[in-house]
Amino acid sequence: MSPGHSEGTDCPSTKVEETQACELRDLLDRLADKWSLLVVELLGERTHRFTELRRAIDDISQRMLTLTLRRLERDGLVHRTVHPVVPPRVDYELTPLGAALLDAVGPLVTWSRRHPGEIARARAAYDEQVA
Amino acid sequence: MSPGHSEGTDCPSTKVEETQACELRDLLDRLADKWSLLVVELLGERTHRFTELRRAIDDISQRMLTLTLRRLERDGLVHRTVHPVVPPRVDYELTPLGAALLDAVGPLVTWSRRHPGEIARARAAYDEQVA
Repeated sequence: MSPGHSEGTDCPSTKVEETQACELRDLLDRLADKWSLLVVELLGERTHRFTELRRAIDDISQRMLTLTLRRLERDGLVHRTVHPVVPPRVDYELTPLGAALLDAVGPLVTWSRRHPGEIARARAAYDEQVA
Repeated sequence: MSPGHSEGTDCPSTKVEETQACELRDLLDRLADKWSLLVVELLGERTHRFTELRRAIDDISQRMLTLTLRRLERDGLVHRTVHPVVPPRVDYELTPLGAALLDAVGPLVTWSRRHPGEIARARAAYDEQVA
């Protein structure tokens, strides 16, 4: 898989502080993608099969769900298990790193849900003022 | 100011859940921008003047700092005070909304600093495996 924006920027700097800041941006950028956080939240409840995830997120395409899961697996946040049964069964679960990330992102999700529209209102007021 | 990616997407949906998810993405996207989180963290320590911020973030340009502060002000996260003195003095501080956001984002920043390079290592291992 070639690197690029959709796979997240790798952080080539050798300065520790710059690398940390870059990795944090990279992580926020990844979570800000339309589907990743939703998938991580669902897997935080329990292990899901591909088809269960597809059903739970009703407007995601099969291709987009596949891509999202592959990125999360590549990031070490999600673990994929293929069961050798007929028909094949594929389970997805959070890794310990993924579970720790979900804990860390929880307060931000809660904040966002407790302040619905506050940023939008601030923007509208600002735009009115400068218009 | 015209809307566009750099100002964050406004969230036009009328469905509450979609709007919340969109606003959260929008917020993560904003924090993932190279400078915003850094400015919010500095203002979390204390009120800063423009020139102090400029000095504290040594590789930010004057133009980029101006833009970053304007976006944060538009989002209702930062408050700007112009003191009518000669020469003019401009102070920036977090609003209560900005302070609450900084609290909420804290665990994620801590997580990221405690797991340096883990995502990068997971990616390298994944890429090796699929190569």
